[in-house]
Amino acid sequence: MIAPNMATMLAFITTDADCSPALLRKLLKRAVNADGSFNRITVDSDTSTSDTVAIMANGASDAPKLTAAGKHHDAFAKALDEVCQDLAYQVISDGEGVNHVIRVVIRNAASDTEAVRLARSVADSPLVKTAVHGHDPNWGRIAMAVGKAGAKLDPQKMTIQIGKTSVYRHGQPAKFDAGRVSDTMNQPEVTITVDLDLGEAGATVLGCDLSRDYIRINADYTT
Amino acid sequence: MIAPNMATMLAFITTDADCSPALLRKLLKRAVNADGSFNRITVDSDTSTSDTVAIMANGASDAPKLTAAGKHHDAFAKALDEVCQDLAYQVISDGEGVNHVIRVVIRNAASDTEAVRLARSVADSPLVKTAVHGHDPNWGRIAMAVGKAGAKLDPQKMTIQIGKTSVYRHGQPAKFDAGRVSDTMNQPEVTITVDLDLGEAGATVLGCDLSRDYIRINADYTT
Repeated sequence: MIAPNMATMLAFITTDADCSPALLRKLLKRAVNADGSFNRITVDSDTSTSDTVAIMANGASDAPKLTAAGKHHDAFAKALDEVCQDLAYQVISDGEGVNHVIRVVIRNAASDTEAVRLARSVADSPLVKTAVHGHDPNWGRIAMAVGKAGAKLDPQKMTIQIGKTSVYRHGQPAKFDAGRVSDTMNQPEVTITVDLDLGEAGATVLGCDLSRDYIRINADYTT
Repeated sequence: MIAPNMATMLAFITTDADCSPALLRKLLKRAVNADGSFNRITVDSDTSTSDTVAIMANGASDAPKLTAAGKHHDAFAKALDEVCQDLAYQVISDGEGVNHVIRVVIRNAASDTEAVRLARSVADSPLVKTAVHGHDPNWGRIAMAVGKAGAKLDPQKMTIQIGKTSVYRHGQPAKFDAGRVSDTMNQPEVTITVDLDLGEAGATVLGCDLSRDYIRINADYTT
């Protein structure tokens, strides 16, 4: 999770809510692990050593103190999730050489842990990333990245969609208009959905395509 | 572990040794997991679904039957390791857009499992791979890839070498001639050695640099 040249990501969030540090910490932890938030994005799987997200509340608001049982809690939590997701999206969009944000959605996995692992495996696969770069609706690479994650899986139950088009269904390649799906991949955001039909867990991880510019930016300078 | 266009790797090894299928299977399993052998190479971490290594023995040799306790056992095992390592090296050298084979050597890790995980983490890191592509002696990226593997680690004990030059020693960047190390990285094979000084386990994984040609080969064709 990086910006060019191994810079460190520092995100500061401020609020005028009146909120205890303990509750604020709990809500921030939830927000950075929400679908598509800071802990659910990957440019290249390489983790910076000092990424930081901080939140500060000064209590200057006239609203009542925020408590876990209070009536504003859920709205505040949802807003904080959205702020983190929005910032995380900007980090990915601004990744080295990125042309496409890839939204990897895992549905009906056996567990939350496996759902996140599967989503990361697809989002970090160089072959999936280059396929998106080339607008190639290559379901075989997606199936490969799902398979190598080592999670519970039944190919006969699995469905893979690119955008809204099923490209693989229940163990078989689906019939689809490759030209039209390729056109939908030539957009700023490409969604890959894998439905495992095994359980009720899900996860969304945001990745990006892998381009010559990624190589240029990361290879063509010296320390 | 792939060749261009998601082709499948098929390796066939033949011998005229007289050897039981059980012993041959055991020796082959050992050989494919040897340092730098088939299960210790990675072009891009993306695993083909049907890579195969097969060995066949017809027993036509005049040599005595090969047995686990026999006097030819160790020599045969060593030869088989070398055949597998040599073939695996050819696979990596022939990877998509490869200019440099990267030999990642982990020394004195806490366990064999962790040593392999650490070696893979360095060999699969896009930032390490692009640094090698650009001949950049960037020890920070190597330390990052070691750190993100989640293995037991003490930075104060760790030493990182590129070729024969220490670039990081016991928690501190080492003084070295960056131009000279960069020159040694402009060779067909670049060795990165990480000594953890924690235990007695080790592993060697072969990877490769990440180049624009990798992108070209994997992005610029359609299924």
